Amino acid sequence: MNAYHIIAKKRDGRRLSEEEIEYIVLGYAQNKIPDYQISALTMAIYLNGMDFGETAALTRIMLDSGIRMNFEAVPGFKADKHSTGGVGDKVSLILAPMVAAAGVKVPMISGRGLGHSGGTLDKLEAIPGFRTNLSEDEFYRQIEEIGVSLIGQTERIAPADRKMYALRDATATVESIPLITASILSKKLAEGIDGLVLDVKTGKGAFMKTPERSRELAESLVKTAQLNGLPTRALITRMDEPLGFAVGNWLETKESIECLRGHGPEDLMRVTLALSAQMLLMAGVADSEQQAMQQLNRAIASGAALQKFCDIVERQGGDLTYIHHPERYPKSRFEYRIEAPRDGYINEINALDVGVAVVQLGGGRQVMEDQIDYKAGVMLHHKVGDFVAKGETLAVLYTDRQTVIEAVSASLAAAIRISEHAPNKDDLIVEMTGAES
Amino acid sequence: MNAYHIIAKKRDGRRLSEEEIEYIVLGYAQNKIPDYQISALTMAIYLNGMDFGETAALTRIMLDSGIRMNFEAVPGFKADKHSTGGVGDKVSLILAPMVAAAGVKVPMISGRGLGHSGGTLDKLEAIPGFRTNLSEDEFYRQIEEIGVSLIGQTERIAPADRKMYALRDATATVESIPLITASILSKKLAEGIDGLVLDVKTGKGAFMKTPERSRELAESLVKTAQLNGLPTRALITRMDEPLGFAVGNWLETKESIECLRGHGPEDLMRVTLALSAQMLLMAGVADSEQQAMQQLNRAIASGAALQKFCDIVERQGGDLTYIHHPERYPKSRFEYRIEAPRDGYINEINALDVGVAVVQLGGGRQVMEDQIDYKAGVMLHHKVGDFVAKGETLAVLYTDRQTVIEAVSASLAAAIRISEHAPNKDDLIVEMTGAES
Repeated sequence: MNAYHIIAKKRDGRRLSEEEIEYIVLGYAQNKIPDYQISALTMAIYLNGMDFGETAALTRIMLDSGIRMNFEAVPGFKADKHSTGGVGDKVSLILAPMVAAAGVKVPMISGRGLGHSGGTLDKLEAIPGFRTNLSEDEFYRQIEEIGVSLIGQTERIAPADRKMYALRDATATVESIPLITASILSKKLAEGIDGLVLDVKTGKGAFMKTPERSRELAESLVKTAQLNGLPTRALITRMDEPLGFAVGNWLETKESIECLRGHGPEDLMRVTLALSAQMLLMAGVADSEQQAMQQLNRAIASGAALQKFCDIVERQGGDLTYIHHPERYPKSRFEYRIEAPRDGYINEINALDVGVAVVQLGGGRQVMEDQIDYKAGVMLHHKVGDFVAKGETLAVLYTDRQTVIEAVSASLAAAIRISEHAPNKDDLIVEMTGAES
Repeated sequence: MNAYHIIAKKRDGRRLSEEEIEYIVLGYAQNKIPDYQISALTMAIYLNGMDFGETAALTRIMLDSGIRMNFEAVPGFKADKHSTGGVGDKVSLILAPMVAAAGVKVPMISGRGLGHSGGTLDKLEAIPGFRTNLSEDEFYRQIEEIGVSLIGQTERIAPADRKMYALRDATATVESIPLITASILSKKLAEGIDGLVLDVKTGKGAFMKTPERSRELAESLVKTAQLNGLPTRALITRMDEPLGFAVGNWLETKESIECLRGHGPEDLMRVTLALSAQMLLMAGVADSEQQAMQQLNRAIASGAALQKFCDIVERQGGDLTYIHHPERYPKSRFEYRIEAPRDGYINEINALDVGVAVVQLGGGRQVMEDQIDYKAGVMLHHKVGDFVAKGETLAVLYTDRQTVIEAVSASLAAAIRISEHAPNKDDLIVEMTGAES
């Protein structure tokens, strides 16, 4: 067996055996196989694909390149949620404490934002002092004691994936369904969870722009997880306009706190509750969706979900001052109001354009090394379907970068399309995969 | 412009502009772009192709990464021949002196053997003392003074191609028509020649196994060369059985000398004369194929071609003793005779199998670092179409490696197929491309 023949096989559209995938992926993790052979292989996989069996083998091998956490000593069902990434997607910040308050353990390992798409770790780190780099021991202990923790990928979790992802990111092979699947699931399987709920985004602000591609990804994720013994369900949800009103790290954390106080935007809560309910159903703490919804609403209404969020912040070193008094958070040097150019119905708020605007305002990263301005972002004042009068505020942008305001406000104004006709609004939840499992 | 977007564009099957190709290929030659991005790009090119315009741009840019020789001060038409590689293909050793004897200048830059396919440089270096690494000055002077020289690719010729070829060889992207085209032609254009004749092999012992693929490569080579201003013709010739009787470096050199003495095997001379004639026609030293053939036959009959070969050997440091007395050449420790297992007509002598056998006998390379035993090889005693009686010698193998004899003789015996029916023999010359140019 050698790397050349494995590359040639995939180049010719043939199936790789588990032994071949193991040889080349573990060889790469152990620095025995050079970058340039793996980038040729991942391009061949991008263009020729992998079947579910190959994808499952790749996932298992990337998982086995590192450790697998073991929560068997912690009683109760352990579940996690993962989103394929969107704009204004702060679901994890609401879902994790709410689901934990309802009695499911949530050992969540999250990612950072890159490009137009935000990341949970950045939103949490917008809270001064918040540590996402807990040791494995601290992580275990926190799950044991408060039932929930949100951290970043450690050195020991799926190192083959980390190395391969960095290479794919430099060689234009990120958007491959088998490679995305193995990357996501190798990390989720390492969490040692009992069930997984996936939020596969579809639409203008998602990696997958069409329902067909999103469905393909959802099926690949669900089948591959199940082949690796992890019960998994996927919701396909729309990501055409941003989720909620806030886009930008601190703005989103603040909106999440509002949600936990019971004042969440309808669209954001619709998606968060739907995903959370699946976790409760998988865990068996609710018998029906209706019952799950009641328990979740009770967690909010009773203040238990907000309290759990405060527990997380406190345990992970965050300053609670800003949770109780968000108005004390430092302000951006510049605020710029975007007005409706005419009367009409908002037909589109292009999530991709808003995401890109936030990066330009300082609130995101072009490359992983970029520093983030947590205050920077965009607050929408309206959602698609709203009627606005000429001159009314459509959005406010927040930034310390005076020089970008003109260009960003123009592109944001162009991203919000107003028409005399009210748009049709489809349900945010497109469909679910994997419920029969 | 950046490497990522160029890779993504080709990944998506889109056309690269000349500026994009220049950015990434020259960037690579100058070590500004890493191996792993180029290997992803070449895999995308392998799978998604390039049109003639892109291939011509790639060729020009690889050419311009190095020097271009200038023979303007040397009077007369300068032409070269290039073969895509075969088994027993010693055409260059016969063609170069014969064409030079007929009045065309031949500044030939050749390659080494790899895998089952031999290389002109190795066959010449089988002559003790023969130097293929002349300086550019020595090369110029020899063309000026005797009209012909055969050397290897220097450091300064198409360095981008040399770097990219080594990478393709490790990442399974060698067999791509646009990449083969640019690799061959960037080196041929650097020779500063006025015309080029290509021998595109087709069949079992060729890189291109089918006439369709060979035709595709021939068209790509001819069009791309013409787009770069080099008049070029291509013959497609069969490579199902080895060319001539000898396979192995010294055995082939010895057979070439026999050809120059006028005792060449029919098939080998058919191909050599057809290619040579095209060079004479392009140079305008002959007006018709018939006239060209007469001149070439005269160069052999008069001894002028053999004398030119001796001039080359002498000028390049080779020991003439073995040209005049080939029987004095060192002998292999082992000779093994393969007998016909039964009466019948030879229907096949699989060139690929014979090529692989010679490598195993010590006469070729698995990887570029392998040492060659110049004496090792196979002498066929018959060709396809011959009738043989049971017990007659089919071939003799020559090697210093006792341990491989059993396995190699078995695989060689299996490569020679005997049947009671005489086979149909097609003409070795399948077709010609580019004559109208």
